Amino acid sequence: MGLFTKDIATLHDLYVHQLQDVYYAEQQITKALPKMIEKATDPELRQGFETHLHETEGQIRRLERVFEIEGLAPKGVTCPAIDGIIKEANEVAGDVADKAVLDAALTASAQAVEHYEIARYGTLIAWAEQLGRADSARILAETLAEEKATDEKLTKLATSKVNGKAELAEA
Amino acid sequence: MGLFTKDIATLHDLYVHQLQDVYYAEQQITKALPKMIEKATDPELRQGFETHLHETEGQIRRLERVFEIEGLAPKGVTCPAIDGIIKEANEVAGDVADKAVLDAALTASAQAVEHYEIARYGTLIAWAEQLGRADSARILAETLAEEKATDEKLTKLATSKVNGKAELAEA
Repeated sequence: MGLFTKDIATLHDLYVHQLQDVYYAEQQITKALPKMIEKATDPELRQGFETHLHETEGQIRRLERVFEIEGLAPKGVTCPAIDGIIKEANEVAGDVADKAVLDAALTASAQAVEHYEIARYGTLIAWAEQLGRADSARILAETLAEEKATDEKLTKLATSKVNGKAELAEA
Repeated sequence: MGLFTKDIATLHDLYVHQLQDVYYAEQQITKALPKMIEKATDPELRQGFETHLHETEGQIRRLERVFEIEGLAPKGVTCPAIDGIIKEANEVAGDVADKAVLDAALTASAQAVEHYEIARYGTLIAWAEQLGRADSARILAETLAEEKATDEKLTKLATSKVNGKAELAEA
């Protein structure tokens, strides 16, 4: 996007820009997850991150189908939001001494990522519907359902186990 | 947080760090909202942003009560996540030529902010409960309910009006 031009003239332009933003974000997430898998101690949390890495790869394929429907080659645009969320996750993880407390921090970071995606896919689906792209809206809704399920799984894992182990680490 | 020290040793340290992160985030949001109010064209969207600005000021007061419960002075730490989300909102807004399309972009940006807060307050409540801070959990839950309500209002406004007006702008 240029500094001296207004590149987004229509809702369709905005939709394509958002698709490119999320395409970039999903790719950054596939780069961040292996480091989170490496750091996670709890086997269930580690397994959850591994599952989500595979899901994310499928979500990238879905975005490529949506680009194809628009007759466009898949392309990403730098997304300062996901860069900031991942930067913060790395900074906090780097500051945590205890492994159980680190699991709690990693879970929280993953939920911030999930909520960013929930917001973006929700918007993309609404715009796809407005633009008469019912097929794309359905494809994007599959991903939104996965993101919400992952967030719920992380909430359950945090409240049933990870946070409790983190508190015990204080003793 | 230092580069050479591990400053977060316990779940309580992590909780305090997250409180400071959200305290900073809420302050950045009170700085960003007046610019969004200025740019918004739809009167209902503009009113929604004004209401949320007042709510955000109340949410900052609530965080100050939670700091007080911990016996700590309220303090913020730089939060790259909210900085990135706001930077992206400004970049996209700067690239949109049409006022109705800009309203759709502003609504989407506001929902990304809301979801960041929903993730963070959800985590803070779970950690407060784990740490036996039922009073703080209740205070934070009031804010979480407001954030969720704001997100739902924005979804309704987008799908009932803002996106439709943005699409008409193409004609």
